[in-house]
Amino acid sequence: MRRRVSIFGSTGSIGCNTVDLLRHQGGVESFDVIALTGGARVDLLARQARELEAEIAVTAYPEHLKTLRQALEGTGIKAAAGPEAIAEAAARETDWTMSAIGGCAGLEPGLISLKHGGILALANKESLVTAGPLMLATAQKYGATILPVDSEHSAIFQALVGEDISNVTRMILTASGGPFRNWSHAQLAAATPEQAVAHPNWDMGKMISVDSASMFNKALEMIEAKEFYQVDPKIIEVIIHPQSVVHSMIGHVDGTLMAHMGVPDMRFAIGYALNWPKRRSLPIKNLDLAALGALEFEAPDEQRFPPLRLAREVMMAGGLSGAVFNAAKETAYGAFMARQIGFLDMAALVEQVLSAEIDLCDLKSTTIDLETVLSVDQQVRIKTAEAVKLRQAS
Amino acid sequence: MRRRVSIFGSTGSIGCNTVDLLRHQGGVESFDVIALTGGARVDLLARQARELEAEIAVTAYPEHLKTLRQALEGTGIKAAAGPEAIAEAAARETDWTMSAIGGCAGLEPGLISLKHGGILALANKESLVTAGPLMLATAQKYGATILPVDSEHSAIFQALVGEDISNVTRMILTASGGPFRNWSHAQLAAATPEQAVAHPNWDMGKMISVDSASMFNKALEMIEAKEFYQVDPKIIEVIIHPQSVVHSMIGHVDGTLMAHMGVPDMRFAIGYALNWPKRRSLPIKNLDLAALGALEFEAPDEQRFPPLRLAREVMMAGGLSGAVFNAAKETAYGAFMARQIGFLDMAALVEQVLSAEIDLCDLKSTTIDLETVLSVDQQVRIKTAEAVKLRQAS
Repeated sequence: MRRRVSIFGSTGSIGCNTVDLLRHQGGVESFDVIALTGGARVDLLARQARELEAEIAVTAYPEHLKTLRQALEGTGIKAAAGPEAIAEAAARETDWTMSAIGGCAGLEPGLISLKHGGILALANKESLVTAGPLMLATAQKYGATILPVDSEHSAIFQALVGEDISNVTRMILTASGGPFRNWSHAQLAAATPEQAVAHPNWDMGKMISVDSASMFNKALEMIEAKEFYQVDPKIIEVIIHPQSVVHSMIGHVDGTLMAHMGVPDMRFAIGYALNWPKRRSLPIKNLDLAALGALEFEAPDEQRFPPLRLAREVMMAGGLSGAVFNAAKETAYGAFMARQIGFLDMAALVEQVLSAEIDLCDLKSTTIDLETVLSVDQQVRIKTAEAVKLRQAS
Repeated sequence: MRRRVSIFGSTGSIGCNTVDLLRHQGGVESFDVIALTGGARVDLLARQARELEAEIAVTAYPEHLKTLRQALEGTGIKAAAGPEAIAEAAARETDWTMSAIGGCAGLEPGLISLKHGGILALANKESLVTAGPLMLATAQKYGATILPVDSEHSAIFQALVGEDISNVTRMILTASGGPFRNWSHAQLAAATPEQAVAHPNWDMGKMISVDSASMFNKALEMIEAKEFYQVDPKIIEVIIHPQSVVHSMIGHVDGTLMAHMGVPDMRFAIGYALNWPKRRSLPIKNLDLAALGALEFEAPDEQRFPPLRLAREVMMAGGLSGAVFNAAKETAYGAFMARQIGFLDMAALVEQVLSAEIDLCDLKSTTIDLETVLSVDQQVRIKTAEAVKLRQAS
């Protein structure tokens, strides 16, 4: 059975791994590739589009359209650029869509894709963090299925197969601890962007690597888990596990922990979403626990990594607080990468913005539409940027 | 819904834990206890029978019948003794039966219980090892369900919930390694019964503790896994995991390992079998991985622990070779406990008997009936006892 497939964020880490798996499972022999979208790496995007015989390739940046068009000349593959073209690409009917654009920009194409009533493989964390209720309601309305592609959420999803979620008493997200796991407060305060982007176990984009070093990534995942599985925030735990071999765990009412394990390779989660509800062979090495010797675990230090504590506040507040949290975080990330603020200032800024916004009553609204989310996102980015300036001035 | 329940081997470790869970789930308010059977601990058996208002209590030993009868005087609970009384008790209709008599003696009551078409919670390893095809065929014939109660097999069973076993490529049994995990060959040769019965993690009966020290226990479990899940012996692995927190693992075709974890407490497996297909709250502590710190794994050493190698031979030979293996092992165990042979002689004797018997063509028969199994069992016990004498004489 041929399937129509699109990949949003095709040239990033998740996107490239998705292309790799499509190739592994027959490429154009098995799939009708509809749309591929990317950012500035238009040469790569064009190569992927040629190989997979895509209908359309879209770059997010209009300044790269010319290069993309040239690279696709004579192929019959349509080239386009900009957010509206991405939205238009998302409106093209598919059976399976990968949502892997990073940041808040990934929300809209995912939402549009849900309207096809197929499968949305969701790697974009911000969709659930900023607009969980909207994503779930849209999926339900159109009969679509959201499959999580984050390694933690895929692990939880897989561990839940055949189980009754109402008996789940623990949802334990593992965290590698990132490159700064054992760093002191003083060292963290002096951490540079170069140090923060170097992740020990996973090969990922820059923002997610920095988020991993600061634990903002895990904070997003806590909120995602709460939104996706609709569970009590109290059952969501985080445990540091430097080897990244236990991808996450589910605890049941009878004391059972079911752990999903494997080598650290994102393709396990992408491949699961691609083949769900079946499992098929994937080009992933078997885990050799004896060769590994030991799996280590430790409690996270919320003093050094305050995003975990902030995530709890966001989960309890609900509504639009996830959108506030994410916009503040993305803005603070930009300021850190531009060396306007220090590493620890990111969490301090987010906390400051969050506590200023969290009591606003419209945050607690449960009817969230895309416009409201994007408007909150814009406002919070402006407020956070102002807070960055004040902090620089002081 | 009240259920009729019997426990075979009620006064052993598994039996007592089963009684504990029946008590935890309402005792006589929830269950109609039909039969309880035990060995020499008739006081305990009588206490259990009184508390659970059993119909009948049976001791395996006629010499203890008088004491049992006295302890039950005035209760209306019937007392009986001997293997035939146990078989008669097994014939009493139940919905759920615990088969926890140790050794080959547990085979017959389990087989009889399957005829009620209910659930057989199977803790007796020998049933599947010596007569796997007979157990499965009987269950199928009468519409009964066998639920494994060994911690490893329950873990595998639970990890398989909702999954397709034809996609399973690894079945990894964890082994604590027992008290002799790091002992040298010379130390093992000199090991005493007192040293062998002291298991670091699990509180069990004597024979199973010695089997755990020698890895005969794991060998039985390998054979059990092959028989119960009807898988290729090649996918069955053993890994040493001293903390006994990962109870076992399943590997799927896509590289996923699904691991069942929890504190080492047999009640997880008994409780699962009691509540299946649901999970209910059990009086078991949550696992605190951070407090534990690390889970260690190492490859087993088949030089020091030859039963693992022997298990592979048995799995490949099939037929009645499991019955030969078990009878030789039980006889060798008796000789070791009587200080007639050394610790390592147990495996050497079993290998000797096995290789003498394994080529007999009737071993490969797949139509196994109880009579044949018991007859092979008897013959092999005699042959092994002779081999013990020869070894002592030499």
